[in-house]
Amino acid sequence: MDKRYILGVDLGATNIKLGLLDRNRIILKQILPTKDFSSREELLSGLSQNLSRLLAKRKVSKKDVLGVGIGAPGPINSRKGIVHYFPNIKGWRNVPLKQIMQKKTGFPVFVDNDANLMCLAEARIGAARGRQNVVALTLGTGVGGGIVIEGKLYRGANLVAGEIGHIPLNETGPKCNCGGIACLERYIGNRYILKKAITVFGKDISLEKLTLLARQGNAQAKAVWQAAAMHLGICLSGIVNFLNPDAIVIGGGVANAGRLILDTVRKVIKTRAMSPQAKTVKILKAKLGNDAGILGAALLVKEGYV
Amino acid sequence: MDKRYILGVDLGATNIKLGLLDRNRIILKQILPTKDFSSREELLSGLSQNLSRLLAKRKVSKKDVLGVGIGAPGPINSRKGIVHYFPNIKGWRNVPLKQIMQKKTGFPVFVDNDANLMCLAEARIGAARGRQNVVALTLGTGVGGGIVIEGKLYRGANLVAGEIGHIPLNETGPKCNCGGIACLERYIGNRYILKKAITVFGKDISLEKLTLLARQGNAQAKAVWQAAAMHLGICLSGIVNFLNPDAIVIGGGVANAGRLILDTVRKVIKTRAMSPQAKTVKILKAKLGNDAGILGAALLVKEGYV
Repeated sequence: MDKRYILGVDLGATNIKLGLLDRNRIILKQILPTKDFSSREELLSGLSQNLSRLLAKRKVSKKDVLGVGIGAPGPINSRKGIVHYFPNIKGWRNVPLKQIMQKKTGFPVFVDNDANLMCLAEARIGAARGRQNVVALTLGTGVGGGIVIEGKLYRGANLVAGEIGHIPLNETGPKCNCGGIACLERYIGNRYILKKAITVFGKDISLEKLTLLARQGNAQAKAVWQAAAMHLGICLSGIVNFLNPDAIVIGGGVANAGRLILDTVRKVIKTRAMSPQAKTVKILKAKLGNDAGILGAALLVKEGYV
Repeated sequence: MDKRYILGVDLGATNIKLGLLDRNRIILKQILPTKDFSSREELLSGLSQNLSRLLAKRKVSKKDVLGVGIGAPGPINSRKGIVHYFPNIKGWRNVPLKQIMQKKTGFPVFVDNDANLMCLAEARIGAARGRQNVVALTLGTGVGGGIVIEGKLYRGANLVAGEIGHIPLNETGPKCNCGGIACLERYIGNRYILKKAITVFGKDISLEKLTLLARQGNAQAKAVWQAAAMHLGICLSGIVNFLNPDAIVIGGGVANAGRLILDTVRKVIKTRAMSPQAKTVKILKAKLGNDAGILGAALLVKEGYV
């Protein structure tokens, strides 16, 4: 293949990560703070300029570039490349991102939700490499998810499938931002774990500190993580029974708590899910970390998803 | 196509239903009580003889028959055509049903779980005809389910996907037969609804009577059905958010309560699920009734699923 280069973009509320890839390998990377751009127009022009600069730096000719992949938070019509809105970036409502960026860059552009792309990347070249039926979660402020079914990214009837964070964990409970009740996110979203930690350790605690304390053997800190992992494990037991996946990949900030979470999740699934499903499913820590977005965006281009 | 006839079998714990189909239409049907056969060997020989008899009755030549499809309850390896076991029929453990029946009948034989086949039939020619992403449930003693993804029956990593009945509805609660805790089936399986009805109406009540009473406007009877529908609706809200299906088809005995259940389920999903998903999903009453098993089994043959 002549066109061996791909540009991958991970458009986040805090940072915009840009990558130049030679096939599946990132050969150049750049990070721009999202708040440096005062408007959407400025952001997209800046993005386009910086993408050109990446190519120039490596002396990559435009004709050798297959296209640009963009992952972004929030509901996206991946078929049309339209961003419905971003939960944490203002000024985006029904933006035809694909169309705008194709005009600006001259390349074919593909756009999808960042959790979908993380799932795609982990299923193709990450922790669940080569597995056919994969569910991936990103644990952060929100709890996002993606689903790969029989090797293909599954998007659902109106392209918003994968909202693992909004599976109810109980019939009654706290109200969730999504309008639902007792959603998983309401138990294990960053702010709710932090809230619990604050009631135990006081205002000075952070999730990083909580992880550190737990690793050092602090029983109270371990208990906070274990409670979160219990919630997650119970929800995943339902997914395991229902979808019978080959693997579940857990990523995002909270996943840095690593084995503190994974061991408990595995134990809960083993105890509560049905035996054939529970024996088969691998619970894996995400492998691609902060690069997952760029890599997934590049895969989107490579596989020509529409 | 020369081979326009298909034999469909719905092998249940109470009855074995046999059908001769001309393309998608059942032209001859037969019902055999399962308990008339004292052993597995007798059952399979009897089945084979009765299938031949169906062909003879309609003067269908063997060479015009595409194959035999068999649906059965319990975990089945549809790829190999092996029945792992039946929850309610004794003497079946790792039975190579496909192989045995191919030898007995001389036709290609395809085998799958009955809830999968009900889902396939409803998605192809039933209530969800032509829809791409469909979840189907059968409400009965157990709560079974099937999943059609992008038009194809989805089976999962070890071919046991679709266990909607064993999605936990709460983190704590009653123990389920599957080993899990607070599974959906534990709230809306026939026996649990009946149990609740008995506490209200005494021992003489049946589910049919409960439905009748509710239809006649009895407030207590309506409340029992509404409570069941609430449980179901909450569980389905999670599936709607996670899988973003085009349609959910509800069938089986309890579904005969019809609108008593469906209206409440729809209301709960509208209230609790995320708006884009909730607006899209159609909650449909199964259309094929008792024929769904035979029709699904025939579709399995026609589509050459392996």
